[in-house]
Amino acid sequence: MLHLVIADAELETIPEEMQADPAIRRFAKKRNKRVDRMILDSNYMHTSIDRYFPNESKRRGRPDIIYLLLEMTQESILNHKNQLRTYVHTRNNQVIRISPITRMPKSYNRFIGLFEDLFEKRIITNNGKELLSMEESSLGDLINSIRRDRTILLHPKGEMRKPSEFISNANILIVIGGFSEGDFISDTSFINERYAIFDQELTIWSVANEMVANYERAVGLT
Amino acid sequence: MLHLVIADAELETIPEEMQADPAIRRFAKKRNKRVDRMILDSNYMHTSIDRYFPNESKRRGRPDIIYLLLEMTQESILNHKNQLRTYVHTRNNQVIRISPITRMPKSYNRFIGLFEDLFEKRIITNNGKELLSMEESSLGDLINSIRRDRTILLHPKGEMRKPSEFISNANILIVIGGFSEGDFISDTSFINERYAIFDQELTIWSVANEMVANYERAVGLT
Repeated sequence: MLHLVIADAELETIPEEMQADPAIRRFAKKRNKRVDRMILDSNYMHTSIDRYFPNESKRRGRPDIIYLLLEMTQESILNHKNQLRTYVHTRNNQVIRISPITRMPKSYNRFIGLFEDLFEKRIITNNGKELLSMEESSLGDLINSIRRDRTILLHPKGEMRKPSEFISNANILIVIGGFSEGDFISDTSFINERYAIFDQELTIWSVANEMVANYERAVGLT
Repeated sequence: MLHLVIADAELETIPEEMQADPAIRRFAKKRNKRVDRMILDSNYMHTSIDRYFPNESKRRGRPDIIYLLLEMTQESILNHKNQLRTYVHTRNNQVIRISPITRMPKSYNRFIGLFEDLFEKRIITNNGKELLSMEESSLGDLINSIRRDRTILLHPKGEMRKPSEFISNANILIVIGGFSEGDFISDTSFINERYAIFDQELTIWSVANEMVANYERAVGLT
């Protein structure tokens, strides 16, 4: 089994500091949504984010990169074969567990609606089956709750190695940053195996793709 | 080099038969766009598509699956290393050539806007560099215009083989269907190497992922 943990993901509802912002309130009105129940999205709210979090406006509010990553993981051969578990740990220490039967909506707007429901109700089911759930947890507690043989962190400052050189047919947990800029917020010092797989910056879904595809190879699926 | 041809892609502007449809005209007005310049999108126009193309409403108007596939191919290690060329051939025999320096907009709405521009202007440049271009061409003529050692078609009725068993370190052209239902519209009988890689239906971006990731392995990148 491959456990993929997307850590410190920039996925949050509108922070308190921003809930009175006029542009944010107009957007909420347009969407007919309570301000505090909207997901922060820099695709539409960049100027407001910059106003309240000037040093983080390039980083915060990126549900789009989580969306693209989950479109990849959930539709992979590895997930079809029930050998992949994907978890999203957010910057606010909320952990989203995603059932392997879960498929993301094809439209980004419906994805946002689904995850706004999740933030509100903490669980999404369909015909009695759990699709998504959310709980409060640190990255460390999440990792320790998962039975695994090896724990690997992908980091630009890790040892430069090809995925085929470190991905083996074992019960592996791989941590990927869920952000497009900067470094981890959570403590990751307890993870000893640290690798970089490319000398240029990659998107998080490209990194996730490489992990999934090379694990598929390691277990003989492709 | 890996040449990835997405064939018979369900990517088109609003067909003539639909341009007088009230719902389509309302949508165009809302977007402040000429009806004939909008891209058909079943995420928003499914009812109208069903009205004019009842047997094809599950197939036509799928820019979303092309968007997801291109987000993936353009951000891959193989593309970063300039060893990937991606082409989109549409159901209407229009061919879109995508420069390896091209990255897709993060927001789906901007992707739609970009490709509506392309359908209108036939070429998209940035600082004098060509990013996207469009020309009229059949699938056969496109394939014959590309220098290659091998031509491969992925098809559910092809020989069941693992990607690692047929992807080699050669100049390979791989044809993937750019649709979510049904079969190819274009003639593909001239392609002898035909493979299926999984016993269940996969999304086109999962198939493209497998091709890209396994070619990366074949050329020693990962």
